Amino acid sequence: MFTYQHLLSFTENILLAIGHSKKDATLGAKVLLSADLRGVDSHGVARLSGYVRLWEAKRVNAKPNIRIVHETPSTAVVDGDGGLGLVVAPYAMKVAIEKAEKVGTGWVSVKGSNHFGIAGYHSMMALEKDMIGISMTNASPLVAPTFSTTRLLGTNPISVAIPAKTQPPFVADMATTTAANGKLEILQRKNLEAPLGWVQEKDGTPTTNANGVKDGGALLPLGGDREHGSHKGYSLGAIVDIFSAVLSGANYGPWVPPFVAFLSPPADPVGEGIGHFFGAMRVDAFRPADEFKEHMDKWISTFRKAETVKGQDRVLIPGDPEREMEKERMESGIPLLPPVEKDLRELGEKLGVAF
Amino acid sequence: MFTYQHLLSFTENILLAIGHSKKDATLGAKVLLSADLRGVDSHGVARLSGYVRLWEAKRVNAKPNIRIVHETPSTAVVDGDGGLGLVVAPYAMKVAIEKAEKVGTGWVSVKGSNHFGIAGYHSMMALEKDMIGISMTNASPLVAPTFSTTRLLGTNPISVAIPAKTQPPFVADMATTTAANGKLEILQRKNLEAPLGWVQEKDGTPTTNANGVKDGGALLPLGGDREHGSHKGYSLGAIVDIFSAVLSGANYGPWVPPFVAFLSPPADPVGEGIGHFFGAMRVDAFRPADEFKEHMDKWISTFRKAETVKGQDRVLIPGDPEREMEKERMESGIPLLPPVEKDLRELGEKLGVAF
Repeated sequence: MFTYQHLLSFTENILLAIGHSKKDATLGAKVLLSADLRGVDSHGVARLSGYVRLWEAKRVNAKPNIRIVHETPSTAVVDGDGGLGLVVAPYAMKVAIEKAEKVGTGWVSVKGSNHFGIAGYHSMMALEKDMIGISMTNASPLVAPTFSTTRLLGTNPISVAIPAKTQPPFVADMATTTAANGKLEILQRKNLEAPLGWVQEKDGTPTTNANGVKDGGALLPLGGDREHGSHKGYSLGAIVDIFSAVLSGANYGPWVPPFVAFLSPPADPVGEGIGHFFGAMRVDAFRPADEFKEHMDKWISTFRKAETVKGQDRVLIPGDPEREMEKERMESGIPLLPPVEKDLRELGEKLGVAF
Repeated sequence: MFTYQHLLSFTENILLAIGHSKKDATLGAKVLLSADLRGVDSHGVARLSGYVRLWEAKRVNAKPNIRIVHETPSTAVVDGDGGLGLVVAPYAMKVAIEKAEKVGTGWVSVKGSNHFGIAGYHSMMALEKDMIGISMTNASPLVAPTFSTTRLLGTNPISVAIPAKTQPPFVADMATTTAANGKLEILQRKNLEAPLGWVQEKDGTPTTNANGVKDGGALLPLGGDREHGSHKGYSLGAIVDIFSAVLSGANYGPWVPPFVAFLSPPADPVGEGIGHFFGAMRVDAFRPADEFKEHMDKWISTFRKAETVKGQDRVLIPGDPEREMEKERMESGIPLLPPVEKDLRELGEKLGVAF
């Protein structure tokens, strides 16, 4: 177990060591660690050495000139200039929030970025302003559209955060696939099979092989197969790709660059870096904020109190599991798998940062 | 087989007969028939007599004063004044488009409405303006959240329409459940079983009983069960409900009034009527429209040309099946099931309108 502060400082020092400004290192570390706190271990500090390898390969710019390159009163395109998504995304979300303050809503599409951590961090930035926050990102292709054997989409997550009054906020944060890749990695480590509907083999056959993606297969869109609505998961992943990248001028579909340094980006890019999309809607641009939040309390408590199926003791509100995990890990610490700990120690030694 | 024109005129005359203005009757008929053209038979002219029964029960206002009750430069709340969703929704979508023309995007939440036909009609209104269109609606509760036995959400569809240049547009239009209720009705008529993952029994047991919902069970959120991501379908349905109704002041969750006259609305409403949510984003609020549309062409043709799994001859782009159906039915006519035809003839006789 490691304390949040321990891992936060280490991450900040690593980001400083590869040339980030103090401000960006602090912000990037906070965004990255929010994944570990919320239990999304695949998107947290376990990725840090991968980011450094991308920086070594000159695919991450530690001193990016992040800026608005086009705007209207309610929209903007932000160029991340190759920076870490961990710092590009909060910049862009802030632009969305500022626009919402002025004209009710703000919508920002981003190009030239990299992996942005968990989508929920960015959408939740809107909550303290009594706004609804939306965030999404495309990602390197691992997902085959319905009826196809070709990987054309990333796990392309969507997060929507909605404030309430006395209840904790509603925070959905989900990949548009049946299961996120992190869930598969857990099964791989434990040598377990995956449920049917998560993965297909290279030829498109449904499989329980948890290594199916590594073996040339693909993750499946939410729904799993046509009969169970995979065309809807495919549509959602496509919408995320288009909002994030075709609107901004980032790479989309099979052109999204991989987030690991040992795989080269496509030689014929159709845009710059990876893309994100953010939205902020001021609640009081629709009705008085207090009125809205009181009804959200009623919405949440109605769903929370609903009768459960046998064997389950409660109906969850989106965000409940992550919030409970955050509380627990803030108090008791964050567990790291032995290979992750080893990887971080080696990273510290290489860059002269004490772990 | 009936020609589009035949059913369109009949519908228009029925709407006139119950007191709609010429303009609203023409618009309402066009919106309703777009469902039949696009192959969504459950949402088309088959619903007409149900609308009339709701009007007889004074739950549809044929002369609504549809109006903006709150607005900012990029948002509005529209009060449908109990009108047919078929006329309220295009009004609200037009407001969204007009706001997008001025400030880049427009977002409209609607209360006091009724069933709005197919979501795709409204989102597609944005296409000719080189805008991305978004539409969603809540609906009477048939869907149980993950782990619950209680029906708290409607099938709450989402549609997103995105323009391209030479390719036909991308038009997703989907219920946030594994299968729409109309799909179940087809199985019921044919006395067939439903795939597991569509329906649960009253006690929450997964079932293949196509009459499970009628027997007190529930439709399942997209994903079907927790292992296959039903918490994501539940989150999506919840987001639609909140954007459509908690933002606007319509009824949400279990309070959404039923769209059949033989079921009474809840005695303790939390808002007015049912709710919708619309968005319009000007493409050139992000990047030049031509550039965007050329990349959309590339996106679409890349996905369309992707390799298929055995037994499938092509990868579909969202909107392909509906567009092909529309072409076919515009040419060859619209088939009606015998009970629907009988129902329409009786409706015509009752209101003195020739079928």
